[in-house]
Amino acid sequence: MKFISSIQNPEVRQIEHWNRKSRNRRRDGVFVLEGLRELQLALSGGYQPEKLYFCPEILDESVLNDILGLEDCSRASLSPDVYGHLAYRGKTEGVIALMRTGDHRLQNLIWKRKNPLILVAEAPEKPGNIGALLRTADAAGLDAVLIADLKGDLYNPNIIRSSVGCLFTVPVAIGDSAEILDFLKTSDFQVLGAALGASIPYHKADYTRATAIVVGTEATGLTSVWKEGADQLIEIPMGGVIDSMNVSVAAAILIFEGLRQRGFPG
Amino acid sequence: MKFISSIQNPEVRQIEHWNRKSRNRRRDGVFVLEGLRELQLALSGGYQPEKLYFCPEILDESVLNDILGLEDCSRASLSPDVYGHLAYRGKTEGVIALMRTGDHRLQNLIWKRKNPLILVAEAPEKPGNIGALLRTADAAGLDAVLIADLKGDLYNPNIIRSSVGCLFTVPVAIGDSAEILDFLKTSDFQVLGAALGASIPYHKADYTRATAIVVGTEATGLTSVWKEGADQLIEIPMGGVIDSMNVSVAAAILIFEGLRQRGFPG
Repeated sequence: MKFISSIQNPEVRQIEHWNRKSRNRRRDGVFVLEGLRELQLALSGGYQPEKLYFCPEILDESVLNDILGLEDCSRASLSPDVYGHLAYRGKTEGVIALMRTGDHRLQNLIWKRKNPLILVAEAPEKPGNIGALLRTADAAGLDAVLIADLKGDLYNPNIIRSSVGCLFTVPVAIGDSAEILDFLKTSDFQVLGAALGASIPYHKADYTRATAIVVGTEATGLTSVWKEGADQLIEIPMGGVIDSMNVSVAAAILIFEGLRQRGFPG
Repeated sequence: MKFISSIQNPEVRQIEHWNRKSRNRRRDGVFVLEGLRELQLALSGGYQPEKLYFCPEILDESVLNDILGLEDCSRASLSPDVYGHLAYRGKTEGVIALMRTGDHRLQNLIWKRKNPLILVAEAPEKPGNIGALLRTADAAGLDAVLIADLKGDLYNPNIIRSSVGCLFTVPVAIGDSAEILDFLKTSDFQVLGAALGASIPYHKADYTRATAIVVGTEATGLTSVWKEGADQLIEIPMGGVIDSMNVSVAAAILIFEGLRQRGFPG
């Protein structure tokens, strides 16, 4: 097994390269994943590791074999300095994996129940917001999260981090808005668009049939594609001075009203 | 009027000092506020400016007099470079104010309606979470936010920023947990504590009487003071793999269930 002790090593530089530039990740169909728990979640979500980089001083190699079942995966060991150089969280985890990206096409989605409840996020701006939406989607047991007109790529390290691994536990599909709207109509989803000044308050809508809750950006809300394409626009009644709601907070309020109406999971 | 063109100026250094260290802010009873909208909100919230620092190249002085009504407030003008050095958001706002801190004692709270709905956050760790809670509290029109066992101080620049000014629009009180619990009992509030494994799901509680919703930290939840002191523990049913909810998301779900039961503001 190869041992890497210099940050000038070409593999180390290549990993940095992938971490920095979404273009490089997309071109090569890979992303970089740090941490044992994240790796476990990605594996259980069906993601394939390409190569493992671990630091024997931090993580015993047997964990990769016995717990993760990755005996056959190609690997290199890193000196603590090189590991610390690459790792965002310093010397706490001990493993960085080069992973194959997943398949996020709409037509790849499979519904496990009759009336799915899903979230559509239009053009979310901040990686932290996407991560927060994925956390809420996991907690709510949503059937999928669709991201319309995503800027950058899904494997931005800040998305992975802020999702605390929920990127791997929730089915995620990407597409442009028109394509997703079309897909939802064809798949017989009711489309509920969150918009200021909408005709009905969110809790008056019926979430029990197959439903897509659509949220826009904090700055400008939904675009006309969604405002015109939605079956119903819904609003969260507010009573403050500023009434400025974080998109992941707004989405959570809508999603959990849906769950309340459905009697919650289990 | 004094004109400051060097970042070595003692007043400039003093502002940096206050921005950096909560100890200095607390000792002197001041905080530093950047931005016109934030200043407007703080003024309408009853906060008193001590001194204004503005950059005439960015903001016309007449705004301070005519729009904000601060003719009598002591002021200095800054060169664009000095302004840019002090300002977090670069050269976009044009005004930084040195403000007197507010009064955040519990006994200072005044209830404007018969059955107030309030939020208690126990030992929130991150300034960003406190800001997000304040945003939600504003949007929900909550009667107050009480922060128990606050680490650091309320005027942390990251709290002000992430609250997008809601720190000034929502009544905020601080105290230790025992003191706040005692205050709530004496004031005849129902105390609903959010806890994993609680006996009832959150939507089965009755939020229509005077109610305090209490949330703990993401990492460890509520301490025993609140778990034992609450009238009822409530839980958000979750159905995911990770079930890791951001504290401001969890609080928003609980608060808006309260609003739903109350028929929303207006």
